[in-house]
Amino acid sequence: MPPVSIPATMNALLLKNDGYARQPSGTVLEALDPYVEAGTIAVPEPEGRQVLIKVVLASINPSDVMFVKGMYGQPRVQGRPAGFEGVGHVVAAGPEPEAQALMGRRIAFATGLSNWGSWADYAVADAPGCIPLLDTVRNEDAAAMIVNPLTALAMFGIVKEAGEKAFVLTAGASQLCKLIISVARDEGYRPIAIVRRDEQIAILKELGAAHVLNADAPGFRDELAAVLREEKPRIFLDAVTGPLAGAIFNAMGRHARWIVYGRLDPAATPIPEPGQLIFMHKKIEGFWLVEWMRTAGAERRMSAVVEAQKRFSDGRWATDVTAVVPLSEAIERVPQELAKPNGKVFIAP
Amino acid sequence: MPPVSIPATMNALLLKNDGYARQPSGTVLEALDPYVEAGTIAVPEPEGRQVLIKVVLASINPSDVMFVKGMYGQPRVQGRPAGFEGVGHVVAAGPEPEAQALMGRRIAFATGLSNWGSWADYAVADAPGCIPLLDTVRNEDAAAMIVNPLTALAMFGIVKEAGEKAFVLTAGASQLCKLIISVARDEGYRPIAIVRRDEQIAILKELGAAHVLNADAPGFRDELAAVLREEKPRIFLDAVTGPLAGAIFNAMGRHARWIVYGRLDPAATPIPEPGQLIFMHKKIEGFWLVEWMRTAGAERRMSAVVEAQKRFSDGRWATDVTAVVPLSEAIERVPQELAKPNGKVFIAP
Repeated sequence: MPPVSIPATMNALLLKNDGYARQPSGTVLEALDPYVEAGTIAVPEPEGRQVLIKVVLASINPSDVMFVKGMYGQPRVQGRPAGFEGVGHVVAAGPEPEAQALMGRRIAFATGLSNWGSWADYAVADAPGCIPLLDTVRNEDAAAMIVNPLTALAMFGIVKEAGEKAFVLTAGASQLCKLIISVARDEGYRPIAIVRRDEQIAILKELGAAHVLNADAPGFRDELAAVLREEKPRIFLDAVTGPLAGAIFNAMGRHARWIVYGRLDPAATPIPEPGQLIFMHKKIEGFWLVEWMRTAGAERRMSAVVEAQKRFSDGRWATDVTAVVPLSEAIERVPQELAKPNGKVFIAP
Repeated sequence: MPPVSIPATMNALLLKNDGYARQPSGTVLEALDPYVEAGTIAVPEPEGRQVLIKVVLASINPSDVMFVKGMYGQPRVQGRPAGFEGVGHVVAAGPEPEAQALMGRRIAFATGLSNWGSWADYAVADAPGCIPLLDTVRNEDAAAMIVNPLTALAMFGIVKEAGEKAFVLTAGASQLCKLIISVARDEGYRPIAIVRRDEQIAILKELGAAHVLNADAPGFRDELAAVLREEKPRIFLDAVTGPLAGAIFNAMGRHARWIVYGRLDPAATPIPEPGQLIFMHKKIEGFWLVEWMRTAGAERRMSAVVEAQKRFSDGRWATDVTAVVPLSEAIERVPQELAKPNGKVFIAP
């Protein structure tokens, strides 16, 4: 790539609020304009081991939605661009060698704690949060190569450590769950996916789910009980919470672990029978990728990144695209595109 | 003790139901007669490593209440005597040497899985569940020497492993919590006890609690928040569940662990903000002595037993007695005696 002239200002979707929400809500995005606004802002200069990236595509992950709503484990900074992840070209780099080494490369990136997000013409990321890409990886896959794939591999790691082949997933048709299901199938595991639409059943069975249950179908509770008796899963990976998740946990057997990583249902979440915590050794906990990254060690992180890029390159994984929305139309169109099932929504600056 | 003639039948409080309750309720005992009835039954013969004990005093623990109500982790057997714990004299023994070695001894005992409980003239226990007593230990202390003291030492062990000096207890004025508070004080820990009566505050501060808060007092929430900010406890030992426990867990900081071991409030138990499981690394789990016994290893079990007997012998621990109720009056009187605060209720056959 030839040297690029970098403008003084850029377009971006800027956070309208500081810090955290006072009242938690669900992780469904009912509208964008309470949280971000289109604006212009000075293009930042990368420092130390940071790089400046000309963004090609930016992801919209559930974690972005939680973040702009003030419900993520990191405070908002008013006036700064949102967006945790994307793909683009490195056009400037801080003085550190690991940043300089990325100059001109096409990379997948995570903006981490930089406060310069990917929903913008230019983004800033730390060099260790950047993955130089093989030419064989599509932009749509590269833009979603870090948050979901690492989450998928990390959570599937929990399943493997627990030692039972079967496990339960809510929001089974999400991009994240599709990644988990296909890795699990390849290693001989038996995902039990909970969905809300009948048309998702065939898709997920094809992908490798051992069972797919529609939680809104009549007879769901009985069918669930029968599947749990047969498969004896211990791990429950839950993006939903609320009464449905409580009922699933309640129906699981001894030593079940309810691992919450999302909150799609803002309704109150009951512990259906606390006696099960005592006598059945059940546990309720959470999963956060940032915490996992902090504690997993460089080797496990790196092997997860390599594995993710391999899977996207050879076609075992592919990102289903619902829409690529121009930055200028994002405020208006993103919520309705996100509400469509089965695929991912990107922003194109 | 001279040889004793053992009668063919005995008086006992016999379980009226089999298995588990269909509907869980609270662990408050509103009445005994839905669950047990006074009756006579053949005196059993001890086998293998079992011993037959002439019961002097039998305990009534929260675990007994949960058991007779069908809410404990062990099924009821209709027509068999209830009661998990007591003190008495060994009057017959199975052929195994460890049982024979106990003949004629005064022992504290736990009936475990024998299905011949302590609320009876005679009880059956496995030799490893029996503790030969020093003469310096009172019957009232010996009858309550296993379930509560081992639970106290095991749960305090969780506090020590977690590494923070401060921890939170609900039902702070229970016999169990009093044991925990006094051990914790001796080792320089800082118990934060939650109670429901103002008169318990001075008693528990005297015993070693760093803070005692009345959950029904005006300003409780603010006071709690201030104490939690100051003391930063991670472990929450909870006998209550329900909305109060949820609110305490919600107010605790990062890495808090809500450890449920009782269910005094039968009300629905919410997870106030599931996002805290994700972003604050909080966890919800349970504690059951039987599970701890299974996994703790013989050495930790034995050292806990030795420690408990020492503490009762030298007066560091003492059991507060609310009432000793004759077996023949138990159905009528036990519920009202149990409702009184601050002490333990025993049955005397």
